[in-house]
Amino acid sequence: MSSNFGEKVKISIFGQSHSEAIGVVIDGLPAGEEIDLEAVQHFLDRRAPGKNDYSTPRKEGDQVRVVSGLFNGRTCGAPICGMIENTNTRSKDYTQLKDMPRPGHADFTAEIKYGGFQDYRGGGHFSGRLTAPLCFAGAVCLQILERRGISIGAHILSIHQGRDKDFDTIGITKEELVKVTSKEFPTIEASAAEEMKGIIQKAREQGDSVGGIIESVAIGLPVGIGEPMFDGLESKLSSILFAIPAVKGVEFGQGVGVAELFGSENNDSFYIEETGQIKTRTNHHGGSLGGISSGMPLLIRTAFKPTPSISKNQDTVSLQRGKNTTLSVTGRHDPCIVPRAVPCVEAAMAIAILDLYEIGLRNL
Amino acid sequence: MSSNFGEKVKISIFGQSHSEAIGVVIDGLPAGEEIDLEAVQHFLDRRAPGKNDYSTPRKEGDQVRVVSGLFNGRTCGAPICGMIENTNTRSKDYTQLKDMPRPGHADFTAEIKYGGFQDYRGGGHFSGRLTAPLCFAGAVCLQILERRGISIGAHILSIHQGRDKDFDTIGITKEELVKVTSKEFPTIEASAAEEMKGIIQKAREQGDSVGGIIESVAIGLPVGIGEPMFDGLESKLSSILFAIPAVKGVEFGQGVGVAELFGSENNDSFYIEETGQIKTRTNHHGGSLGGISSGMPLLIRTAFKPTPSISKNQDTVSLQRGKNTTLSVTGRHDPCIVPRAVPCVEAAMAIAILDLYEIGLRNL
Amino acid sequence: MSSNFGEKVKISIFGQSHSEAIGVVIDGLPAGEEIDLEAVQHFLDRRAPGKNDYSTPRKEGDQVRVVSGLFNGRTCGAPICGMIENTNTRSKDYTQLKDMPRPGHADFTAEIKYGGFQDYRGGGHFSGRLTAPLCFAGAVCLQILERRGISIGAHILSIHQGRDKDFDTIGITKEELVKVTSKEFPTIEASAAEEMKGIIQKAREQGDSVGGIIESVAIGLPVGIGEPMFDGLESKLSSILFAIPAVKGVEFGQGVGVAELFGSENNDSFYIEETGQIKTRTNHHGGSLGGISSGMPLLIRTAFKPTPSISKNQDTVSLQRGKNTTLSVTGRHDPCIVPRAVPCVEAAMAIAILDLYEIGLRNL
Amino acid sequence: MSSNFGEKVKISIFGQSHSEAIGVVIDGLPAGEEIDLEAVQHFLDRRAPGKNDYSTPRKEGDQVRVVSGLFNGRTCGAPICGMIENTNTRSKDYTQLKDMPRPGHADFTAEIKYGGFQDYRGGGHFSGRLTAPLCFAGAVCLQILERRGISIGAHILSIHQGRDKDFDTIGITKEELVKVTSKEFPTIEASAAEEMKGIIQKAREQGDSVGGIIESVAIGLPVGIGEPMFDGLESKLSSILFAIPAVKGVEFGQGVGVAELFGSENNDSFYIEETGQIKTRTNHHGGSLGGISSGMPLLIRTAFKPTPSISKNQDTVSLQRGKNTTLSVTGRHDPCIVPRAVPCVEAAMAIAILDLYEIGLRNL
Repeated sequence: MSSNFGEKVKISIFGQSHSEAIGVVIDGLPAGEEIDLEAVQHFLDRRAPGKNDYSTPRKEGDQVRVVSGLFNGRTCGAPICGMIENTNTRSKDYTQLKDMPRPGHADFTAEIKYGGFQDYRGGGHFSGRLTAPLCFAGAVCLQILERRGISIGAHILSIHQGRDKDFDTIGITKEELVKVTSKEFPTIEASAAEEMKGIIQKAREQGDSVGGIIESVAIGLPVGIGEPMFDGLESKLSSILFAIPAVKGVEFGQGVGVAELFGSENNDSFYIEETGQIKTRTNHHGGSLGGISSGMPLLIRTAFKPTPSISKNQDTVSLQRGKNTTLSVTGRHDPCIVPRAVPCVEAAMAIAILDLYEIGLRNL
Repeated sequence: MSSNFGEKVKISIFGQSHSEAIGVVIDGLPAGEEIDLEAVQHFLDRRAPGKNDYSTPRKEGDQVRVVSGLFNGRTCGAPICGMIENTNTRSKDYTQLKDMPRPGHADFTAEIKYGGFQDYRGGGHFSGRLTAPLCFAGAVCLQILERRGISIGAHILSIHQGRDKDFDTIGITKEELVKVTSKEFPTIEASAAEEMKGIIQKAREQGDSVGGIIESVAIGLPVGIGEPMFDGLESKLSSILFAIPAVKGVEFGQGVGVAELFGSENNDSFYIEETGQIKTRTNHHGGSLGGISSGMPLLIRTAFKPTPSISKNQDTVSLQRGKNTTLSVTGRHDPCIVPRAVPCVEAAMAIAILDLYEIGLRNL
Repeated sequence: MSSNFGEKVKISIFGQSHSEAIGVVIDGLPAGEEIDLEAVQHFLDRRAPGKNDYSTPRKEGDQVRVVSGLFNGRTCGAPICGMIENTNTRSKDYTQLKDMPRPGHADFTAEIKYGGFQDYRGGGHFSGRLTAPLCFAGAVCLQILERRGISIGAHILSIHQGRDKDFDTIGITKEELVKVTSKEFPTIEASAAEEMKGIIQKAREQGDSVGGIIESVAIGLPVGIGEPMFDGLESKLSSILFAIPAVKGVEFGQGVGVAELFGSENNDSFYIEETGQIKTRTNHHGGSLGGISSGMPLLIRTAFKPTPSISKNQDTVSLQRGKNTTLSVTGRHDPCIVPRAVPCVEAAMAIAILDLYEIGLRNL
Repeated sequence: MSSNFGEKVKISIFGQSHSEAIGVVIDGLPAGEEIDLEAVQHFLDRRAPGKNDYSTPRKEGDQVRVVSGLFNGRTCGAPICGMIENTNTRSKDYTQLKDMPRPGHADFTAEIKYGGFQDYRGGGHFSGRLTAPLCFAGAVCLQILERRGISIGAHILSIHQGRDKDFDTIGITKEELVKVTSKEFPTIEASAAEEMKGIIQKAREQGDSVGGIIESVAIGLPVGIGEPMFDGLESKLSSILFAIPAVKGVEFGQGVGVAELFGSENNDSFYIEETGQIKTRTNHHGGSLGGISSGMPLLIRTAFKPTPSISKNQDTVSLQRGKNTTLSVTGRHDPCIVPRAVPCVEAAMAIAILDLYEIGLRNL
């Protein structure tokens, strides 16, 4: 329970914000897959903080050490364990968290759940830092999926009121995905990036934070990936996406917007291409029908709340004294975690999709 | 895989739209729980079709027969199996589905996934009919949760452009939940119900359909339910909610709306009541922090797409002939499945929450 | 937990000895597999009681009704549910079980575990009757395995002091398996059957019971089935075999006997056949190396205790009165359950092996 | 799959014989449990090689580094990861294994299963070395069980023809368990140890190896631990015991011997003590009835085959050349792994029992 995900490809994440190390064990990968560790590290660097002035100036140095599971550069059938040492932790910053839970964080719920024994430093096991091993696992899965013709990418659709254009829901290509994910601030339109950066900068100056939406897509999925009911694409993907801290909404295809459409508008009619391939003319279903891939781009929007750590004064309680009090969360925090969350969304998708892909294999 | 859900309280759903019977096995329930089968049947009746003129006139007769797991009216530690005979099936209606996949349905994806061997009659295992056993399992779990002080209820927040008022996110009471769920058309405001019924009626007349949003809530949850990461409340609940056919978006608390808030707006500050209980002044987090219950109402919005079965002409393909063609879905269909989906959402919540509740038990 | 088994091919067993019905849901079977229900029923008949005078004279009438999962006689990707009505139950026989636990049965442990709420009639969910749905699931899996070239069979190796000859560990053929399993009393040598029947008859006359050992084998397994560590062949098979009531020991290949061998005796040396196939000259390893099939016959011995229900007087306690007392188990009981357990062992093997087979599939 | 075990308390083992490190993630432990890491290390030292002249002279230095999951010396609700660096590996010793599979090892089955991509050095993920993380996880679980009044211990019952006396199946005490497990060569009788050491020494001199049987016991289990059917004590324990390399047989209580008993001999009659406690006069059932603990000592015998690595010449094949050939396994090997396997058996039991204990918790 809890920090395990997957049925055939299984991950088990460990670590706390300030434990000696964090990491992940990935079990059930197919053997013989070449893994480019430089590309993996590059993927993790997209999540790393301290790259620029709209994220936290901390240097986490997310250098992954792969201690098992690879042999001659390939998966060998044994579980991969990737470890990241926690070298730059300032435990002293967090001493008051035990007493005064930060609004919007898991401090209070963890205190009650674990009877006061939780590791409260930096949010412990609930810290966003734990998305680093998620990204490692995702980066490994992504390379295996790429070899099967499946590509995954994401961009920042919105930050507060600032909004990028949508992905082309029908015709998005791998080239466009590579182009947007290789950007230092991944939006489709450069002007959107500028606007969003300005919004973030302004929030930082005010000791505040902002949220946003990430739009992601997987292309190249064959028809038939996903199991019925509880292991459908939406079930599986939403369960891993909501495991990313700060996610409060997940939509597929037209998402919440379907509620305001007529069936005749929302239904995507089928047609047959000259090549014999069957496609839909529109893609409101977002690539999943009955939880199973339709061959159309798999489209997801994931909504992130504003970073709960803000320097503005906030009301809270002192658990020890049983009294109301006020708190200002000091320290180094992202005024917006959305840019760093982009690779996390891609990683989560890659893990869930590879698991379903491997489950779906049949000896036809 | 697929039709199984849960870790400690496990359900295994079986059946197709036109199989001899459908049903569910529920394993892992605590022993000694009295189950009121009349109340269970009443819960299922809320989902049943043919009750009025804004739903399908079919009579499904969802009479559940409990063949195991109860002894002297109580759970006995053995799995409960609840069965519903499929008595009123018209298989002849569905013969063309094998060739011409209906837009918005799983006909096409199932055809490819199962190599043509799927039971295509009425959507087979992908039919909305399979929510009947889900409701049975949920009704059983609800009674067990009620005994632990946890209540669950839901209303129709919107259908197309028609909208009900929101639940009171802070102070909603069990009485209000009972009141709304006992309505034949569950909205908080009577005027909203009238408006929505009109919308549905109009869609029906046009051979079309409409979608909508269901808002649901669980109250009385103690602090500490939910496991970290992949078994957090949001992960668990979204994975079962997306297993209900037609769901395309799931939001917790402020949901997608968090993307447009500042941290200082979205954070819910803690305070201590005279009773010593710790609460939050607002409830944008929707009752879950770090995936763990905060003691505040657990708030969810689930978006349903318009019923894909519409009598209007639609483009599709003939798989056999490899040609484009046109289809009109005849037969008896709900122009809007949202009213009947209300108990399904409650049932899904009850199953997931009881599972997490039982997992979270500690011998403190 | 508890009544669920399997990861890809999952079974969920329900029912008690005296519930309305018992049965099983089988999820995750490959689609398109033709299932011969007559052959399935024939398999169940091998387990059925009342066939002759060395087993209980009860008539259980294990007629399975398949209510879902088959379409046009083939698996369709949806879970199969097989149900058996409990028509011939005499609940009055069991009223005293609640107070006076029978030695060797689960009456006492169930009473404590379920706080007195267990269904104590006939052993409830712990009854050997629950092997009927196991046999149904196994019979389905067997047909699918046969289509992949894998055959499973078993014989009675011993009953009390009576002993059959061993299977040929190297060269056993499908024909021999069919021959032994089609026998009404499955031993290799006819004389062994006669001796064993005599032993059983004598035990019956004395109001006593006897145990025995079943030797089973799977042939035709390709090399590579089984996952490392906790999902190795031995782990998986032992966990399902020990779920059959009365099993107290499970051995693979040379089994417990390996403890008295030298490595130079026990190691099975490899050689290459003219066909290029690699085999071992002996088969002490019993077809599994590192938990993975070696291509040699998979050999298992499963030890069953004597039926705990005996009419001889036994000491026990009255739970209600808190006093020691004496009990004679009346009613209709097998003096030896080993003959009827033969198909149960085969069924358990088939379920576990098909699950591992499906897990092991790779798209090479 | 494969290297994961457990439902509530879950372990995920990683590493190969010659990977950079090996280790285990333990998820789902109750929070607030003090863990004495010195005692944990002491437990691991019992398994470590090179301690004396009847085991391999290799020095593995199984120093565990706990990188997560403990906070102020206690479990904190987050997964524990324990890592052991592989410092003393001589990869050059193993180059020919890729071509010439060793009899009795997983070299051949892994080669086929993983298409030649397996890490063949020292047996890779199939190496007995992977029992080190198992022992780490077990040592942690043991401390938690001890706090709940449950003790586990084991001794060498036999090596080849040498045999120790049996545990007292009724009255074994914690003191006796501590006494035997604290021995450098754990037998009850000193003379048995001398005889067994002589047997091992002789096997070594002949370039051969010997097997043996470990008898283990858990005492202090409350009545009611274990779930019905597939998660019964025997199912759960056998599945983890068979995951220890070289195990070929597992027996509970009277084990295989039940096959030769009459029911009247084998049944353990209940009686009530003056204290009101209900016990059985004998313990042929070995502490489990219906897979659920009876409160009597839980007795297990686990049979280990002789170490397959022997220096004597053995026949095998050259996979590359497709020809029969001869092999002598050189290097440092235990002529008998049984003494070092004693803590492995205890560890496996502790993990499985703690998992079932935590699953069985009820809020009665």
